[in-house]
Amino acid sequence: MGMFDKPILVFQTDFTYKEGAVSAMYGVVKTVDRELEIFDGTHEIPQYDTWSASYRLLQSLPFWPKGTIYVSVVDPGVGTARRACVAKTANGYYVVTPDNGALTHIHKEFGILEVREIDETVNRLQSTRGVAIFHGRDLFGYTAARLASGIIDFEGVGPAYPVDEIVLHPILEPTVEDGLIRGIFEIDDPNFGNLWSNVPLEDFNRAGFRYGDTVHTTVLHGDEVVFERDVPFHKSFGFAKKGEPMLYNNELMKVAMAVTQGSLAQEYGISFGSDWIVEFRKA
Amino acid sequence: MGMFDKPILVFQTDFTYKEGAVSAMYGVVKTVDRELEIFDGTHEIPQYDTWSASYRLLQSLPFWPKGTIYVSVVDPGVGTARRACVAKTANGYYVVTPDNGALTHIHKEFGILEVREIDETVNRLQSTRGVAIFHGRDLFGYTAARLASGIIDFEGVGPAYPVDEIVLHPILEPTVEDGLIRGIFEIDDPNFGNLWSNVPLEDFNRAGFRYGDTVHTTVLHGDEVVFERDVPFHKSFGFAKKGEPMLYNNELMKVAMAVTQGSLAQEYGISFGSDWIVEFRKA
Amino acid sequence: MGMFDKPILVFQTDFTYKEGAVSAMYGVVKTVDRELEIFDGTHEIPQYDTWSASYRLLQSLPFWPKGTIYVSVVDPGVGTARRACVAKTANGYYVVTPDNGALTHIHKEFGILEVREIDETVNRLQSTRGVAIFHGRDLFGYTAARLASGIIDFEGVGPAYPVDEIVLHPILEPTVEDGLIRGIFEIDDPNFGNLWSNVPLEDFNRAGFRYGDTVHTTVLHGDEVVFERDVPFHKSFGFAKKGEPMLYNNELMKVAMAVTQGSLAQEYGISFGSDWIVEFRKA
Repeated sequence: MGMFDKPILVFQTDFTYKEGAVSAMYGVVKTVDRELEIFDGTHEIPQYDTWSASYRLLQSLPFWPKGTIYVSVVDPGVGTARRACVAKTANGYYVVTPDNGALTHIHKEFGILEVREIDETVNRLQSTRGVAIFHGRDLFGYTAARLASGIIDFEGVGPAYPVDEIVLHPILEPTVEDGLIRGIFEIDDPNFGNLWSNVPLEDFNRAGFRYGDTVHTTVLHGDEVVFERDVPFHKSFGFAKKGEPMLYNNELMKVAMAVTQGSLAQEYGISFGSDWIVEFRKA
Repeated sequence: MGMFDKPILVFQTDFTYKEGAVSAMYGVVKTVDRELEIFDGTHEIPQYDTWSASYRLLQSLPFWPKGTIYVSVVDPGVGTARRACVAKTANGYYVVTPDNGALTHIHKEFGILEVREIDETVNRLQSTRGVAIFHGRDLFGYTAARLASGIIDFEGVGPAYPVDEIVLHPILEPTVEDGLIRGIFEIDDPNFGNLWSNVPLEDFNRAGFRYGDTVHTTVLHGDEVVFERDVPFHKSFGFAKKGEPMLYNNELMKVAMAVTQGSLAQEYGISFGSDWIVEFRKA
Repeated sequence: MGMFDKPILVFQTDFTYKEGAVSAMYGVVKTVDRELEIFDGTHEIPQYDTWSASYRLLQSLPFWPKGTIYVSVVDPGVGTARRACVAKTANGYYVVTPDNGALTHIHKEFGILEVREIDETVNRLQSTRGVAIFHGRDLFGYTAARLASGIIDFEGVGPAYPVDEIVLHPILEPTVEDGLIRGIFEIDDPNFGNLWSNVPLEDFNRAGFRYGDTVHTTVLHGDEVVFERDVPFHKSFGFAKKGEPMLYNNELMKVAMAVTQGSLAQEYGISFGSDWIVEFRKA
């Protein structure tokens, strides 16, 4: 097998690149098999935030070649009884992760065909066996490398368990009713300060909204109204007035809100999660 | 063609690595052609700052192997009428970028032989065609990958347009007159807080300045004098007193100013751009 | 020689990825030999901190394949008389670095077999020879690339010098006496805010401490007691109460302290270095 017959490994963690952890983790992979290709997904997932880990998989995984193995290590329960697993998705990828909610969006959007618990008696770096707090290096990266290199096949990961035992975060599905579209802000763009809803552009269009329209937009945090305003819906940022809130179709074909060349999150104190409701209706 | 017959792709953006955008963009490249090599230039260009994008190309592009394709995505006008282009430089590189000023320094220092507008009807990821706000993934990265893999040649990018239509930022050229050298601070080193002028070491030496000399240095922001002081000119940081301003020859053979183990930018409130004038004369 | 016969290059610096320096440095490597594989160790070592550079080598180097060449550029003395060197370690690696303390931990833990001063007349990028302030690009990266590609062998680096001339930081070795274990906090985890002592788990266990025990823990900064408290010793973070200090066995089999899902460093004002003493005794 040549190097390009072996799947790419992509890693996302909440480790940051500030110290040597990512390097040690990648070193283990290259020690298992020198030919493996490794890419950074992101190492700046907010600490312990398994919801964000789940969303980042949705955002980037489907753009990689089929067969790619995505390793996600946001692992507040490292060393405890939570399962370490490898999931096989219906759209042709593998995800190696603690089973702690990180599979939520992948499961909902693409489907998971099969999930296996990593057998630590086989798929664990032996030289560090006294260490219980760095499964990214000792278990997840190591197992992913063995799988990618063909040392083990998917069955070799460990015993399968029922897909319906996978730990999932609750997601409030978007609704369309009497001209009111309601969803949640599912995630932010932490760099530009945009907020992304879970309302598909398709629903938005079907409700009659077109580029150039103005949309009455309400954001609630629980019961409290945090933002209420008529907001233009534009094809892209450059069509809006600098500093003004605007709606747009984001990179995953969902409705999102931004401040052009500003930060919606910071300027209006808006965040994301199941308790951040967004409502759209005709202005 | 083997993998090393295909040019390297280097990416610079203002996306940061905080979320999944870079990963999705690179995934598209590897989906076009698994054999392509990808490197990070930087993903921390200040947001929307096409001037900095232009300077970072100058700083790093010529150190890569001839033929390297540099993809620069600082794109405040994404989805609007600004041109998306590929430029062929006189020193043997390709730059894929929105035509928004990012080619300024490359054009001035190395020359651009030819520029082509990306034909979106051909060189656009089809699976995301409703998305107008992520050309890094859907247009620039995708086109660069097709060019690198040999799927298209340079002509295949799209129609050529006149090089003199390229959008350029104005640059104040350095002058030497009656013992006064005047230039601008063109860029900073955002990590160490140094400021880099556009005055070539050659001019500085020709005006008689040598390592060990003291140089009367004035910094103006527009008309306001922000800094005025006799500053030593040293071969490197270790020859200066910790905490004191010093001049040195930077990595591109231009005169720069630093505070040894401190931050000139922060401690003296100095920044960069065409309105940040720096003047040197004999002390 | 195929690409996988050539050692991997891993780079750590205090440059950050905010501007084009890392890109230029890697471009030089790929220009020397297109086939070389490059990985980021970290580019966020605290500025000028040769102690941290030393520790990060210890943390990650041994997880890479034997033969890997680690390039470390934390170089406050760049361009001055400090030696630029390549060290060959007893466990089978090469480290390319200014000889300024960065070899301290590697030397102590693994041993250095031989060290050579880089001969600048041979192993220096010629196109930038007027530049004295960027040895990462012009000397260290370039020499490492030549060594990895086989253009030079280890002897070709330059003249050997005595291993006992290597610049070392003093380290306070841990002691066990009358039920009191004393060491230092050697480094932090700057992301999660944990502090890592230099006390081996082995000593800790030999002194009778087991998971579940409570340990009377004192932290002194010089003579001042900064922290004194009974702290539980757990197998991993998930066993401790959120927000409470806890001891654990870190990824290098040494005793470390954390606040579960908090930051020990920030919340208790604790840092690292030879003057940060930590003491453990029975509660």
